[in-house]
Amino acid sequence: MKCVFTLDVGGTTIKCGKFSLEGDLVDYFETRTNVDDNDPVGSLLNQIKEIINNIKANDELEYLGLAVPGPVKDGIVLGCENIKWGQVELKKILENEYPNIKIAVLNDANAATLGEWYYGSGEKVNNLIMVTIGTGIGGGIIVNKELYTGSNGSAGEIGHIRIFPFKGRPCSCGLTGCLEQYASATGIRRTAYGLRRGKHTLLNRYGRISIRDITQACIEQDKIALQVMDKTAYYLAIGLSILAATFNPDVIVIGGGVSKAGSVLLDPTLKHFKELAFYTIKDTKIVLASLYNKAGIYGAYYYALNGE
Amino acid sequence: MKCVFTLDVGGTTIKCGKFSLEGDLVDYFETRTNVDDNDPVGSLLNQIKEIINNIKANDELEYLGLAVPGPVKDGIVLGCENIKWGQVELKKILENEYPNIKIAVLNDANAATLGEWYYGSGEKVNNLIMVTIGTGIGGGIIVNKELYTGSNGSAGEIGHIRIFPFKGRPCSCGLTGCLEQYASATGIRRTAYGLRRGKHTLLNRYGRISIRDITQACIEQDKIALQVMDKTAYYLAIGLSILAATFNPDVIVIGGGVSKAGSVLLDPTLKHFKELAFYTIKDTKIVLASLYNKAGIYGAYYYALNGE
Repeated sequence: MKCVFTLDVGGTTIKCGKFSLEGDLVDYFETRTNVDDNDPVGSLLNQIKEIINNIKANDELEYLGLAVPGPVKDGIVLGCENIKWGQVELKKILENEYPNIKIAVLNDANAATLGEWYYGSGEKVNNLIMVTIGTGIGGGIIVNKELYTGSNGSAGEIGHIRIFPFKGRPCSCGLTGCLEQYASATGIRRTAYGLRRGKHTLLNRYGRISIRDITQACIEQDKIALQVMDKTAYYLAIGLSILAATFNPDVIVIGGGVSKAGSVLLDPTLKHFKELAFYTIKDTKIVLASLYNKAGIYGAYYYALNGE
Repeated sequence: MKCVFTLDVGGTTIKCGKFSLEGDLVDYFETRTNVDDNDPVGSLLNQIKEIINNIKANDELEYLGLAVPGPVKDGIVLGCENIKWGQVELKKILENEYPNIKIAVLNDANAATLGEWYYGSGEKVNNLIMVTIGTGIGGGIIVNKELYTGSNGSAGEIGHIRIFPFKGRPCSCGLTGCLEQYASATGIRRTAYGLRRGKHTLLNRYGRISIRDITQACIEQDKIALQVMDKTAYYLAIGLSILAATFNPDVIVIGGGVSKAGSVLLDPTLKHFKELAFYTIKDTKIVLASLYNKAGIYGAYYYALNGE
């Protein structure tokens, strides 16, 4: 069949989606990312080509969309820490290899944003912000129904909104008090370790606490776990209220692994947002993502057909 | 002559500019705003019409651009506190009065942003943020060479970025710790009153301190005045670093009355911005506005010809 093939390349897995030209996801699979330390670019490129060639053997590939975990400008990957890539002219390399396929390359957070905006919870609104909460906090922005990446491609660094500019937790970026240190999985766990100390709580079941553990303890109405989520929601709401006051989006979508906490995270976030938001943007819609780990391949599909 | 006439209606003065169709400002004047408490809309509308009719008597008016101090949606003024207007269908009213003139109505902060972007310090870049610092702090946003006003027209509420979300100064918006309470003229003066108390400083020359007084004392190397500006610059840089990390603009323009402090404000702001900004946006250009109180009429000219 004629198809659009998309890859969402992450540090541990590559997610792959085969779409019909009409946009139906007809096949989905994941595979472990293969990065050889001695040749990170060559080894991963070979793996990517192998996956594509397997598809090409059976299908007529018209478009190819690739999402990568780092900044991209004009098809050039500027560097991806977790796959150990420096600058790679990915689009050009693949165009040379597959001259008859239309190829698009974009950043993975932007892909997830496009995916959620068009096929997920974003409902194709004019202006949207997606906040992706995982180990860190990233984001993506849609302005007037187009991806907005800023002057050097680094717009949407929502994790580095500094909610405690004065005496905050130190951040990997070298600054202090960044939202990422409070509302990411890492930040939430840190809050949990602090709050459970010396307390009678279900969180003592675990040595190393996961977000799923905290969520489960909240569902079981554990007071300390609820306190952890309430604090997290408050921190997150500060960040979201700043975004809403400056961007005034139609919708803010919360995605990434932590969003799987669901209403346990969303409900207190909505409550605190109402308290913290400037009056003109109090009614900003805040929703959970719905495509989960498929957001990236949906976004890469959209971008392959409509982007650039 | 064939011309474009623009009015920038403020709470105390109306600034008026007559432009040639090619964009040369051929006449500029200011007049006191006349708002009768018993009929604020009727009285001010009469004044506006009178001004326009005077121009029409001698010139062929092809375009008319009006900037007003409140939110505007589709030519409808949604309310302006400082001219005591509620909702007014300003564009429609003027179109009925002047059926042969093309009429555009926009918010004054947006007009100033367009003016500085296209004719002033903004140099027509793709993405720009203008921060207007006066009694309060407002702002405007250009995205992909177009004015961006957000989902309900309230994007750019930069003054309500909360830099002290926990124990900040109370703000007129009902929240606490908003940037406006620290870096506006009101905020700066408050900082000055606090710091001069019991100190030997040139700021004791004055009872009520103005921004001009503080600027002058800084030029005379007064330690307390310099401390006031350094603190202000630090507060401002927190707000600007948040804006830059999320929007990643090419340029941030600082305008409004307080920007007349010039390098006394800009230099420490640039220094603190470098310390506070996320690494990808450390090199964001930050400049002072150059059109001063004429930014609004230039922006209204641009909007009359290119907007809507």
